[in-house]
Amino acid sequence: MSDALVRLKETLGTIHDLERIASLVAWDQETMMPPLGAEGRADQRATLVRLSHELLVSRELGRLLEELRSREDSLPYDSDEASLIRVVRRDREKALRVPAELRAELIRAGSLGLGAWLDARARQDFRILLPHLERQLELKRRYVECFDPAEDEYDVLLDDFEPGMTTAEAESVLEELKDELVPLVAAVPELDPAEDVARSGPFDLADQRRFSLGLLCELGFEPDGWRLDSAEHPFAMAASLRDVRITTHYHEHPLGGIFACMHEFGHGLYERQVSPSLARTPLATGASSALHESQSRRWENLVGRGRAFWTHAYPGLQETFPERLGAADLDTFYRSINRIQPSLIRVDADEITYNLHIVLRFELEREVLAGRLALADLADAFDARVHSYLGIEVPDVRFGVLQDMHWADFTFGYFPTYSLGNVISVQLWERARADLPELDQAFERGEFGDLREWLREHLHRHGRKFTPRETLERAAGSAIDPAPYIRYLKDKLETTFGVAVA
Amino acid sequence: MSDALVRLKETLGTIHDLERIASLVAWDQETMMPPLGAEGRADQRATLVRLSHELLVSRELGRLLEELRSREDSLPYDSDEASLIRVVRRDREKALRVPAELRAELIRAGSLGLGAWLDARARQDFRILLPHLERQLELKRRYVECFDPAEDEYDVLLDDFEPGMTTAEAESVLEELKDELVPLVAAVPELDPAEDVARSGPFDLADQRRFSLGLLCELGFEPDGWRLDSAEHPFAMAASLRDVRITTHYHEHPLGGIFACMHEFGHGLYERQVSPSLARTPLATGASSALHESQSRRWENLVGRGRAFWTHAYPGLQETFPERLGAADLDTFYRSINRIQPSLIRVDADEITYNLHIVLRFELEREVLAGRLALADLADAFDARVHSYLGIEVPDVRFGVLQDMHWADFTFGYFPTYSLGNVISVQLWERARADLPELDQAFERGEFGDLREWLREHLHRHGRKFTPRETLERAAGSAIDPAPYIRYLKDKLETTFGVAVA
Repeated sequence: MSDALVRLKETLGTIHDLERIASLVAWDQETMMPPLGAEGRADQRATLVRLSHELLVSRELGRLLEELRSREDSLPYDSDEASLIRVVRRDREKALRVPAELRAELIRAGSLGLGAWLDARARQDFRILLPHLERQLELKRRYVECFDPAEDEYDVLLDDFEPGMTTAEAESVLEELKDELVPLVAAVPELDPAEDVARSGPFDLADQRRFSLGLLCELGFEPDGWRLDSAEHPFAMAASLRDVRITTHYHEHPLGGIFACMHEFGHGLYERQVSPSLARTPLATGASSALHESQSRRWENLVGRGRAFWTHAYPGLQETFPERLGAADLDTFYRSINRIQPSLIRVDADEITYNLHIVLRFELEREVLAGRLALADLADAFDARVHSYLGIEVPDVRFGVLQDMHWADFTFGYFPTYSLGNVISVQLWERARADLPELDQAFERGEFGDLREWLREHLHRHGRKFTPRETLERAAGSAIDPAPYIRYLKDKLETTFGVAVA
Repeated sequence: MSDALVRLKETLGTIHDLERIASLVAWDQETMMPPLGAEGRADQRATLVRLSHELLVSRELGRLLEELRSREDSLPYDSDEASLIRVVRRDREKALRVPAELRAELIRAGSLGLGAWLDARARQDFRILLPHLERQLELKRRYVECFDPAEDEYDVLLDDFEPGMTTAEAESVLEELKDELVPLVAAVPELDPAEDVARSGPFDLADQRRFSLGLLCELGFEPDGWRLDSAEHPFAMAASLRDVRITTHYHEHPLGGIFACMHEFGHGLYERQVSPSLARTPLATGASSALHESQSRRWENLVGRGRAFWTHAYPGLQETFPERLGAADLDTFYRSINRIQPSLIRVDADEITYNLHIVLRFELEREVLAGRLALADLADAFDARVHSYLGIEVPDVRFGVLQDMHWADFTFGYFPTYSLGNVISVQLWERARADLPELDQAFERGEFGDLREWLREHLHRHGRKFTPRETLERAAGSAIDPAPYIRYLKDKLETTFGVAVA
């Protein structure tokens, strides 16, 4: 390796270490930290982000990248080295726009916001979080101002999660989903509550945990290299390629914690299967939030709410909860976990209404950022939008504006990637099923290795080498396209509930 | 505040954040990390220590310290600001001796050593750890060479834990302990095993945990600002002044996990009670290892193996373990937890033989460093020394050379501070009891606030403002002196077992 490349990799290794440590201390904050630690933790997280930012924008790194320009040109586009130089140059150009102090302040304010959110939820009082949101909105506006004026201010925020995608593109996908899905929801008959066995509870929490862990180990969770913990809001992270941590949240009913496990497993596996040749570089992570969500939503829904999977797993679940499920056959259980019915909590929503939860959050974020909606009115606006799209009433803020962690640290721009991920998940799913025609039979035997390997080969191993658009093109063979997803939903409705929709 | 002082505090805040994060990721490694994460973690820890080192030795910080020299001279010696400048100048001068890369390599090698140690213990094979020790010894020798030649090479290592103390001073204290204690051990009659109720077990682990946590809360453990976890080797750390974490290790017998809790509580409380005015500075921690151990060994022994304490706590313990302890009166239990008998595991040793465990480790460390003992022979030498000082045989390496974590990451220079801490603990204890004549009565009522406040006022709040020598002088009114400790041990022997020793 050339001397410049060695030095580049050293600096990038340091940056990467700091970023992974930042993820770890965030994980610790959500799972382990005593609440009084919040203030010290905010300082620590701000310091980590400031230092890694300073390294990224350093003149030294700029010089190295200049020095390596001809080398980059001489290498194949998809080589690890050319990709590393290319991606870091892009990261650096973006980072140069934002003063380190502003970046640190955003992290610090977000970290404090998370503490306030927990408090606000416990006391069911949005006003506890409000000043934190006001402060963060002000900071986010300053952040947006660091960049060239975009067609839509929201473009800047979306780009942090879905690099290269515009708000207009996201909107066109989400609008198509909304137009197609609202009539679907209306067409599905309500499930008889007596048949709704997945919500029959109470399901003992320790039993759920034991069952989930067993299931995860079948999917590919390695006990020596993964952890499963509880958190207020489930999430996944990788402290390194061989230290993957997922969290879930069990309720006595519905049986949602198991699906949250599968969701977070999808995130974890993406991080786990990045090529070891990219370790300790900025390429050693998923390509974008939507691609990440395409993995989590796949394992949660395409696998985890599928019939083949439960053909294998249901007997074990019945044994775990004989009183609740012993008398319910697989068909009944399958219909119950695929019930389509508007509900309050996004993460527990069915596959169809889930997207309406996303649409309304996307809309509200854009309205807040554009100044058309005051933060003080956000709680009420949230409730009104839920009523308008889902036809249900929000009883209190824990089921409304305070249900998600994402706004506590003002992660605006993230929500749309869930629905984009849903869309992509089916594009990839169709590809994988074409390549692996025996997939259902494998699932019925409890074998998931072929799918894992397909994902590793076509998506995971590339990490962040390519842009999200390039990555999707390589894995799915096409650009983002909601048609397969809509087709999948309609087909599932028909086979599960006999509802035929044009 | 002057501009230079503001900038100094900013840089020190960053250094402090990095150091606290390093403690946190070390805690995570011992308590939470899946084993495959060890390699990535070693890189991360090395990065943290390298960055904080680079900041400490930066020319910018040197300039600020120069700029602040006259300001320092104009302030009272014991003011926070003068102390900060003085201590940082000393830290920086020491840090400048050591290249950042060597420091990072020491941490990296130590972190890998910890992983190897766990593996070596599990497989009862010292040879798994040996190459890690060889590598670390080589690094430690390079470390020693960074400093001016000392009377004894070991001085350099000891200074990292007990700044300002020479090996000769430590040796004189430890030799006096050895000379005084060996005859004591011989004079104590063996306890009738039927009376040895604290070793009667099995004591249910979950019950031990529940009881320990209740006890800790009485001592001053705040559930909102502390954590208690399990670890292979108990330790304590503070992620910030309000995020204190202690670990313990329960065995079914003896009842040692409770004493480990009290030991680590002592460390935690020292960190917790540092003055908030020192937060986020390098002064926000204990003054030295021996002073720290004086706190942990106090709570474990002077309080936790005392009669007044158990007068209060024993009924609760009996209720927790009615089958084991219901029939044993307080006197019997008290004699059992104060049993003097040579045993294999240092952390479970009685108050007297504990020091012989320390003496032999101190001697072996010095012999290894001086090249008089090859690392390949360390396991055998350990066993032989145990036999010679304690008269017992080591059955396998888990009970011998692999029992402590300290050598896994080559923390040479730490062990002597345990016995120095024992000595200091009684010096402070005599002072506290003179100031608080009603202390025993308070303990009997389960009240520990007066002792906590005394410790805060006389020791904890100062943090690292003063040298260990100055700190001890302020708190105890004298230099280190083994006489009170030896007097205390003899007195306890006499009152507990009727053994009168001159």
